[in-house]
Amino acid sequence: HIPLAVLRDLPTRLRQADWRPEAALSVEPWGMRVLHVGPRTHTPCCMVAVDIGTTAIKARLLAPEAACVASCYNSQVMFGPDVITRIMHCQRGEQKGCRELQDAVVGDINRLVAALLEDGGRGRDEVWGMVVSGNTTMMHLFLGLEPAWIRRDPYVGCAYGLPPVRPEDVGVDIHPAGRVFCLPSVASFVGADITAGVLASGLAECERPAALIDLGTNGEIVIGCREFLVCCSASAGPAFEGAGSASGTRARDGAVDSVWSADGVRWRTIGDAPPLGICGTGYIDLLATLLAEGAMDKTGRFVSDAPGVAEAGGELQYVLVPAAEAATNADIVLTQADVTNLIRAKGAIYAAGCVLLQSLGLSWTEMDAIMLAGGFGESLDKDNAVAIGLLPDVPRDRIEFVGNTSLRGAVMVAESAENHWKARQAAAKMTYFELSTHPDFMDQFVSACFLPHTDAERFPSVQPGGDQVEHQ
Amino acid sequence: HIPLAVLRDLPTRLRQADWRPEAALSVEPWGMRVLHVGPRTHTPCCMVAVDIGTTAIKARLLAPEAACVASCYNSQVMFGPDVITRIMHCQRGEQKGCRELQDAVVGDINRLVAALLEDGGRGRDEVWGMVVSGNTTMMHLFLGLEPAWIRRDPYVGCAYGLPPVRPEDVGVDIHPAGRVFCLPSVASFVGADITAGVLASGLAECERPAALIDLGTNGEIVIGCREFLVCCSASAGPAFEGAGSASGTRARDGAVDSVWSADGVRWRTIGDAPPLGICGTGYIDLLATLLAEGAMDKTGRFVSDAPGVAEAGGELQYVLVPAAEAATNADIVLTQADVTNLIRAKGAIYAAGCVLLQSLGLSWTEMDAIMLAGGFGESLDKDNAVAIGLLPDVPRDRIEFVGNTSLRGAVMVAESAENHWKARQAAAKMTYFELSTHPDFMDQFVSACFLPHTDAERFPSVQPGGDQVEHQ
Repeated sequence: HIPLAVLRDLPTRLRQADWRPEAALSVEPWGMRVLHVGPRTHTPCCMVAVDIGTTAIKARLLAPEAACVASCYNSQVMFGPDVITRIMHCQRGEQKGCRELQDAVVGDINRLVAALLEDGGRGRDEVWGMVVSGNTTMMHLFLGLEPAWIRRDPYVGCAYGLPPVRPEDVGVDIHPAGRVFCLPSVASFVGADITAGVLASGLAECERPAALIDLGTNGEIVIGCREFLVCCSASAGPAFEGAGSASGTRARDGAVDSVWSADGVRWRTIGDAPPLGICGTGYIDLLATLLAEGAMDKTGRFVSDAPGVAEAGGELQYVLVPAAEAATNADIVLTQADVTNLIRAKGAIYAAGCVLLQSLGLSWTEMDAIMLAGGFGESLDKDNAVAIGLLPDVPRDRIEFVGNTSLRGAVMVAESAENHWKARQAAAKMTYFELSTHPDFMDQFVSACFLPHTDAERFPSVQPGGDQVEHQ
Repeated sequence: HIPLAVLRDLPTRLRQADWRPEAALSVEPWGMRVLHVGPRTHTPCCMVAVDIGTTAIKARLLAPEAACVASCYNSQVMFGPDVITRIMHCQRGEQKGCRELQDAVVGDINRLVAALLEDGGRGRDEVWGMVVSGNTTMMHLFLGLEPAWIRRDPYVGCAYGLPPVRPEDVGVDIHPAGRVFCLPSVASFVGADITAGVLASGLAECERPAALIDLGTNGEIVIGCREFLVCCSASAGPAFEGAGSASGTRARDGAVDSVWSADGVRWRTIGDAPPLGICGTGYIDLLATLLAEGAMDKTGRFVSDAPGVAEAGGELQYVLVPAAEAATNADIVLTQADVTNLIRAKGAIYAAGCVLLQSLGLSWTEMDAIMLAGGFGESLDKDNAVAIGLLPDVPRDRIEFVGNTSLRGAVMVAESAENHWKARQAAAKMTYFELSTHPDFMDQFVSACFLPHTDAERFPSVQPGGDQVEHQ
């Protein structure tokens, strides 16, 4: 396909180039597209891959000999901390709200692109393509699609499969004749980030079934292999992102990301910086450690006379770091409400996986791998995650960290049309399970709101003296 | 494919339609495209097919229970009577000339569409698609592509395969979300009209080779079948369109379209109207009749003492209709220059066909059919066309009139994506022969500038007492 605008200039450009022109071609799943024809400049074509997270935006420049990354907060935060509050912002202001949120995220992306270009020593007009990933709401807001519909009966977004658009259609500052591709979403709460995850983890090409769990805000789970893909959102909430807890924080310098017991409860912060709060992996470790130390029972209730447990405002809480040692000059604590929150989150994720497996007639132990997507990386302690019942009790070597698959998937799509096609195929192939109306989910969820689970036999390795054995 | 603009409105439209929407879909060779979604109106989708001729524009409305046609002169005529003068107009005025010509033809088309809609009782917003055919220069001017390149070394146009465009891109007045498709051209002088001709005549699906001859301005010839398609332009000039001759006229009421001998030379006009001039078929008959009557020799020279032959301005001419009987109050004549012109035109067409056949190792008699495209229709006398050597001497039942295949091809493309695909395939498959640089063409042409041909054996049925026999 050669657009009319390119055709109009073609004869002049060919002659300017003395019949040896340079062309910018976009190789897309549906064919090739000529973006530009002109004299030879030998300038390479660059691409930018973007992961729009609800909290943070990451971008990567793909250029020969210059692959740099940049990230920033999502400035939409000023309109609301999470997806729901931002959708509510849109609902209030006619189309104005939606526009404000689009402007915010596009502004962020443009600043990231500018930074990447400076880093990589490239110019704006060398960027001919952008591939964008993110959850369904983020994709809506990026394209200026009204997300309010996601929260209104029948809870479907404007669109999940998204057409390529022109930079001017959304306002991103790359070559005006370039192309902007959005990875497809699957459902209102299984977004393009999960499609990217399936691509980056290779799940759709596995010989035997495996599970991909994204421990982000919603806790999306995909189970499948080459033959099938099913997915759901556990609506787990952002507890494992450190949000909504008394001392929660993102994984950044100063965040307690690891807790263990050795003559009492010990902790470590990212970058060994003075402690600011607790991030996701810190909470997982903390729950497991307090459980092991006997400071908390299996329902998550604090044991009032355990060391570190104290009363505050009529409720028990655990003080991990006293104010004197904290960078915040306030106690870094785990409250009873935090525990409830975390148990609900981990219970929802585990239960969601169980419902998917049940529907497929499969069990956790039949999973070839359990791949964890998200920013945790190696700092997540697998034993602790199993001990609190967040992850199933499977041999630990089957649990893999696959990192930020949303950005990696976007990069892969930018790298080849074949990957782009695979991503679209994967999204089309994913069968979505709506858990909120699923008859078994509530039962499974209630059973899972226990440490590790009301059915202790599911977690044999967690029982006193228990060994890791294969059992659902 | 669902464009971003449609997606943005989709949720609102679906709800307005109470989830039972009506959609306007464009079924295209490269997939389906959603043009619009809205509440049910049960309004049918209409299409318009357009044939942009250098002289006249014809359009047809395709709507259920209302298929009307309209035609008008091409107002580009005010900038030049033919393709070459119009290209020269573009060359003079920077991009202004090209713009003027585009505005002229688009204005014509919009007036035709308005007339068709009134005739058919339809509204502008019911027209969701337009399919346009015409010669390469007309297609360039319609899309605002600079045609000057056609006349500059290396004589290639901007583009032959043309992308679908939006109505606003060219300015045609149909539904703003509709689609405008241009049939593909093959070369600078083998245009979309010929591609349409191949489609409408079914040439690309013939079991055995056949020839398609368009007797329009250029005299394009396509020879082929299911296996192959070759084509060329004879650059014959517009003599058979009645242009460039002393008393030439288009085929319209009052045009002498038939001439025969019966106790002298007799003639008839279209609509039996008072004679205005001579059109293409009239010239063919006139040449054959004068030849048979002995008023002209085989080189085309008038016999000075033959009835009707008279001197004027030092040259011999034949007076077909004296001024007293003519609607123009001037003699309707055939001049020696006209004869030269007509012989060159017919010689070029015949020679072009011979060169194509020679290249393929085929002969005229191996052609399953010789299909004549153009406005002649049944008024063309096959025997006379053979007698002057315009058409080869083959059994007369193999000569078929296929009419205005340019418009018919456009209609077919409007009717189905399969036809659209076939047309694009045909254009891609056609091998173009450039005759102006072909070593044999000039020889063949010179030999053919004779009535019927210097090699009389090629036209056995034309010789005194000759029968129709099969011979190249």
